[in-house]
Amino acid sequence: MTMVSRRDALGWLGGAALGGLLAGVGAVAALPGEGLAARKTLKEKAPALAAPAWIPHRLDAAECAPLAYAGYWKDGLGCCYGVFESIIGSMGRKYGAPYNQFPFTMMEVGKSGISEWGTVCGALLGAASAFALFWGRKERDPMVTELFRWYEKTAFPLYDPGAAAQGVAGPLPTNACGSVLCHISVSTWCHAHGIDAASAKRQERCSRITADVATKAIEILNAKVDSGFAPLLSSKSEAACMSCHGKGKPSPIAKGRMDCTPCHSGSAHVQDKFRNHP
Amino acid sequence: MTMVSRRDALGWLGGAALGGLLAGVGAVAALPGEGLAARKTLKEKAPALAAPAWIPHRLDAAECAPLAYAGYWKDGLGCCYGVFESIIGSMGRKYGAPYNQFPFTMMEVGKSGISEWGTVCGALLGAASAFALFWGRKERDPMVTELFRWYEKTAFPLYDPGAAAQGVAGPLPTNACGSVLCHISVSTWCHAHGIDAASAKRQERCSRITADVATKAIEILNAKVDSGFAPLLSSKSEAACMSCHGKGKPSPIAKGRMDCTPCHSGSAHVQDKFRNHP
Repeated sequence: MTMVSRRDALGWLGGAALGGLLAGVGAVAALPGEGLAARKTLKEKAPALAAPAWIPHRLDAAECAPLAYAGYWKDGLGCCYGVFESIIGSMGRKYGAPYNQFPFTMMEVGKSGISEWGTVCGALLGAASAFALFWGRKERDPMVTELFRWYEKTAFPLYDPGAAAQGVAGPLPTNACGSVLCHISVSTWCHAHGIDAASAKRQERCSRITADVATKAIEILNAKVDSGFAPLLSSKSEAACMSCHGKGKPSPIAKGRMDCTPCHSGSAHVQDKFRNHP
Repeated sequence: MTMVSRRDALGWLGGAALGGLLAGVGAVAALPGEGLAARKTLKEKAPALAAPAWIPHRLDAAECAPLAYAGYWKDGLGCCYGVFESIIGSMGRKYGAPYNQFPFTMMEVGKSGISEWGTVCGALLGAASAFALFWGRKERDPMVTELFRWYEKTAFPLYDPGAAAQGVAGPLPTNACGSVLCHISVSTWCHAHGIDAASAKRQERCSRITADVATKAIEILNAKVDSGFAPLLSSKSEAACMSCHGKGKPSPIAKGRMDCTPCHSGSAHVQDKFRNHP
């Protein structure tokens, strides 16, 4: 019995889990007709049985970005799946379990800001969820904040799939949306450039942002794995508002770290659209 | 060899996966000293090897709500973990794998609207993620929309843990926040009642909402399992705005399903807070 035959036969289990599993089966093996010698051999090989650990590995963003882009388009699974699968799926392809055991299609949940609701950008949720497999909140929160701040400030999309384009080929217009919310991200881009939010061009934008977010997330993940991660970005409006409304301040009613500007600047977009619509 | 000894020995694998796994090992079993009779017996028992399926099961919301509440407080894992674990963890406790194989602590990601960012309410993300393990977007999106609309309209919190309270015991003030965003949900409640967003009272509110969201999500899940789910709730503002800004309409720039009122009504909260702060 070779390792290959074990691996093939065990199908949905990845390589890293195999030793423990076969050892576990061996440890209770008392098959009719099985000799003592065979049982002894199996027992001697048996290590302690444990779940495979979620250990982060460095990734190559240049390899993963096209996977994130393609993941967006795969069966319409979208941005959150695309980013998450490009990270955790890539670890699975290299290292087996536990990475390749994750029920990946669950991550479709983030598509269009959670089931079309336009809340958090699903690409960002995919990255934050991947981080959360490895790091608890004290370590993860600064990583997420760096990624989210970068998203608020960056004029998207950056990635160009070239000949691999699945929606619309060629350059796309860009803007920095100032928000991590899907609704604001998509709608400000569509408003700025006169583009239909339901068009292939808008889908192409979001699929390219999926690659962009995967690239930035992997940069942060690699720095963290190398113990070199330090957050760089901040928000002037968050700092200003939280100086009164944050924890321990005079009016500590505000929760969150989103840039306050899109909703609290009194812009034309947040005027009374129900009675005085322009 | 009893089922109990197999279960114990296989440790991190749950009950539902056992048949397929042992059969899979049996199908390639050619252990030294093993007799032909044993191999034949194993092969006859071997079903096709496949990953354990994510099949939804009915749950008892009255059993799960206290688990969701307690999950919020467990190691500070928060609302998203609390809801998700009360649903998928409960299935795991009853049915084993694949439910009990999920890396549950990953769901801490939704705490405070994704790593403190105040985007989508993490309790809602936990429920939507649980739905996404079983249903693709065409079936899931109406379930999520029903849950999210209910959240916008409901005066929270409803659940009272009684003597099991972990933050603050007794009744809490309520309000309907009109939004699925953590920032608006928490901050409007704190503003309305003069409560510190970093206080134990606010945490108690969110832990009770964790139980409330689990209860509503299980009501929707059970109806779906019974093939009786039909969405009931709608949003006047979404309908009004999308009649011009939705797909196929004159100005199709808007993405999302959130109630438009909190940010587009020109209320005092969205006036220019940077220059003309009251």
